[in-house]
Amino acid sequence: MLVHDIIRHHGRVRKGQPALVFEGEVVSYGRLLERVDRWRETLLRAGVRKGDRLAVFSRTNPDYLTLLFAALSLGVWFCPVNVILKKPEIERILGDFSPDLLYADSPLVEVAEEAASRVSPVRGIFTVTEEGELSYRGRKESGASSPEKISPDDVAMVVYTGGFGKRPKGAMLTHENIVSASFFSAVELSLSPADTYLSTFPLPFLAGTGRLMKFFLVGARVVLMDSFDPEKAVRYTKEYGVTHLLLVPQMMKEMTEVLKGRGEKLSGVRQISYSGIVPVQPNVVRECVEVIPADFVQSFAQVESSGVISFLHLERETVEKGESLSGLLSSVGKESVGLEVRVENPMGEELPPGEIGELVVAGATVMKGYYEDPLLTEEKIRDGRLRTGYVASKDEEGYLYVVDRLQDIIIRGGFIIDPSEVEEVISEFEGVAEVAVVGAPDEKYGEVPVALIVPEGGEFAPEKLLTYLKETLASFKVPARVEVVPRLPRNSQGKILKARLKEYLIDRA
Amino acid sequence: MLVHDIIRHHGRVRKGQPALVFEGEVVSYGRLLERVDRWRETLLRAGVRKGDRLAVFSRTNPDYLTLLFAALSLGVWFCPVNVILKKPEIERILGDFSPDLLYADSPLVEVAEEAASRVSPVRGIFTVTEEGELSYRGRKESGASSPEKISPDDVAMVVYTGGFGKRPKGAMLTHENIVSASFFSAVELSLSPADTYLSTFPLPFLAGTGRLMKFFLVGARVVLMDSFDPEKAVRYTKEYGVTHLLLVPQMMKEMTEVLKGRGEKLSGVRQISYSGIVPVQPNVVRECVEVIPADFVQSFAQVESSGVISFLHLERETVEKGESLSGLLSSVGKESVGLEVRVENPMGEELPPGEIGELVVAGATVMKGYYEDPLLTEEKIRDGRLRTGYVASKDEEGYLYVVDRLQDIIIRGGFIIDPSEVEEVISEFEGVAEVAVVGAPDEKYGEVPVALIVPEGGEFAPEKLLTYLKETLASFKVPARVEVVPRLPRNSQGKILKARLKEYLIDRA
Repeated sequence: MLVHDIIRHHGRVRKGQPALVFEGEVVSYGRLLERVDRWRETLLRAGVRKGDRLAVFSRTNPDYLTLLFAALSLGVWFCPVNVILKKPEIERILGDFSPDLLYADSPLVEVAEEAASRVSPVRGIFTVTEEGELSYRGRKESGASSPEKISPDDVAMVVYTGGFGKRPKGAMLTHENIVSASFFSAVELSLSPADTYLSTFPLPFLAGTGRLMKFFLVGARVVLMDSFDPEKAVRYTKEYGVTHLLLVPQMMKEMTEVLKGRGEKLSGVRQISYSGIVPVQPNVVRECVEVIPADFVQSFAQVESSGVISFLHLERETVEKGESLSGLLSSVGKESVGLEVRVENPMGEELPPGEIGELVVAGATVMKGYYEDPLLTEEKIRDGRLRTGYVASKDEEGYLYVVDRLQDIIIRGGFIIDPSEVEEVISEFEGVAEVAVVGAPDEKYGEVPVALIVPEGGEFAPEKLLTYLKETLASFKVPARVEVVPRLPRNSQGKILKARLKEYLIDRA
Repeated sequence: MLVHDIIRHHGRVRKGQPALVFEGEVVSYGRLLERVDRWRETLLRAGVRKGDRLAVFSRTNPDYLTLLFAALSLGVWFCPVNVILKKPEIERILGDFSPDLLYADSPLVEVAEEAASRVSPVRGIFTVTEEGELSYRGRKESGASSPEKISPDDVAMVVYTGGFGKRPKGAMLTHENIVSASFFSAVELSLSPADTYLSTFPLPFLAGTGRLMKFFLVGARVVLMDSFDPEKAVRYTKEYGVTHLLLVPQMMKEMTEVLKGRGEKLSGVRQISYSGIVPVQPNVVRECVEVIPADFVQSFAQVESSGVISFLHLERETVEKGESLSGLLSSVGKESVGLEVRVENPMGEELPPGEIGELVVAGATVMKGYYEDPLLTEEKIRDGRLRTGYVASKDEEGYLYVVDRLQDIIIRGGFIIDPSEVEEVISEFEGVAEVAVVGAPDEKYGEVPVALIVPEGGEFAPEKLLTYLKETLASFKVPARVEVVPRLPRNSQGKILKARLKEYLIDRA
């Protein structure tokens, strides 16, 4: 089964049923499939072939999904470029991916073309006409007479993940990866065609597209939001009878506030899922469940495992196991159906319950590898098992507990930041002698990056550095604050002791 | 993902939750997995290896499932021998399959050993001790030091299907076939771990094992019945809070009668599924839904497609489409998620809606082929598409309508009979000059076989023939009656005109 078969099936059997709702407009599965087929024709006429690399600049809208299914049906390697990234970041990704083709929705055409012209010349660019049709400008290849056969093991998407410090890492996800992830999570969540999903995440994130795919798989209805707004989310939930939402803790808080302020409750919501990567405070869930009575399901994931690792069904577990909510929330749940998640020692041997080692995932969602990086791929995938880089333990019941991360990363409200990338940019700024970027606890986002600077001379103006960083880095990567310190603690080999800096920031919080 | 991974996963994460209930005893997923692992060890010690052919003689009980998972985890080819078959039939299957090993539960040891000794000598036989452990008697092979790796494309089961006329047909189902069938139907039925399934079908049928597997896939509870009894089914449903039943029309009728007789209703049942192979009279469903208010889901299947082709969700469709129940019941539903089901002309081209052709299935549930029969496999599977032998049409909405069967088969209350097999046996009986076995309409079973005989001499005693047939054929294949006729209608080439005989029987009914 291939990714576009999902939409092809429902286009055949649920023709008249709604697939998408966007800005008040409803698109049925039948109409979505017709449009996918028209766009596919345009791609074919432009000479697009299996294996062509397509970099996609898009906001969240139905066009993005139309393109996704059309391109994947031809075996195109689809690479979403997150438009919240800044120029230098985008250029790094394009430089690594070296696309054959671009797609840009109207406001992004210039950004896309400029970036490509500077880094990696392309054959042409696809844009959308005012009538909503796909159009092509560029060199036409004499395509194959008929599209090539695609197999489940062929690459479908290349998703660049956080951590652009050294080289960008493009996770290659196959058709089988994405279809399996959809089946596994549809079964974990017992989804049905009667469900309506409110998509609150930007689609060009895997969390956006991947999480939405399982709803298409079962033939449910998806309501798209271009950007999250708590008032709008409440309104859509009531208006469309939303049964399933994906919320990061910050979104939960904001929706809770809106509803409490109005003395309202949202009924009819069946499930709220949220990412287990961000530690959730029990009171956030407790207050949210008061105004949105629903099952809370925590999912823990990594792009390299196609967005599926483990699930924590709060309602079911508290009922079945009599566990307390706060006890449960310290776990990232249990391995997803379809996967085997183990805790291993560095020799790749499984550790007994309670012992701490690396979290390792085996199953059909494990990515094919990193794009053009066999060495890093070999490090990350051993005997088909994905080494997540999370340090964890597993108890007798199968609950997984993440205690640390092998990689030095900061997670700001769901967004993953590689501190070394931010440090690299800062170290090039005038007047900086030494720098360390460290995660500090934050009420709103869980964790935020803080830059600790040792200046070269006496004077240093943190505001100027921040202004520069805002032009160079996506806003979520820009440190919440810059602190000037006299020196950075180092060990005898000269390595900066980040753990000590973290403690320092926690003590001050 | 492999079949035994299903039980391995839940043995890890739902250790204490019930997997099976049989004769009042509850077996948790944890205990089931422990037992599977012990049996696997016994198989290993007996030298069992990947590719070994195991013929299984078993009634319906947890041992059967334990063996299934243990054997499949070693890559064994598992062949259930239906114990309602009679000696000559069993010998034909063993002769074709030529097993390396046997398994027999206690009352069937003699039957199994005798059949094997006459047709196909085996290495040894597995039986179950009084303590419920697996034991082996026979030659021990020096097995591999460690079990061989199994891939999803390896054969898991060989299931012999109706139609032993010429040669028995063993459908080879791979691990991927069975796992995919489970995922597809779990998604179609929105199953959850909160479900409890009452298994009313003998397990050594694919309808028994295959339909049960999807409940294991989601971690639900399965209540096993060794044979269907309406009083018991009602009692179990109440006692265990059954949410899902599989019923053939005859079972529906019997449960309806029991409940009506007592003036009772069964609440809490979420879904009743029934096989769409047997035409269902709308009043049977209507009366059943009155006493068991539930969603009725019809599934249409073939062993060669791992038991999944299409689903008809009566409740959903009547609500969404405003279709009438009787209108809907003339359809076998719409293609299952994960599959493409088309109507094709003999050249393999898809026909437009409304036109009549052969029903053809593409997708991950299509069997690998028939065991040791490449010619028949080639006939049945073209370009990976399964030619079902059903003559059908599809409407604009995707509803499939079966109008005829290409093969001459009779379906008696869900059991498939190949008339040519029965004719062959009858033609060898003394005093029979000509014979035709034809399906006649029947109030209880939908259709029953009737034998029309032209005797050699004047005198012919149908009772003697029937007595002989009861010893030779499984009881469901024995004609409901034998009629003596002066001659059989034939066309100019001498072929018996069965359609005319059917009309004759319908007129008389």
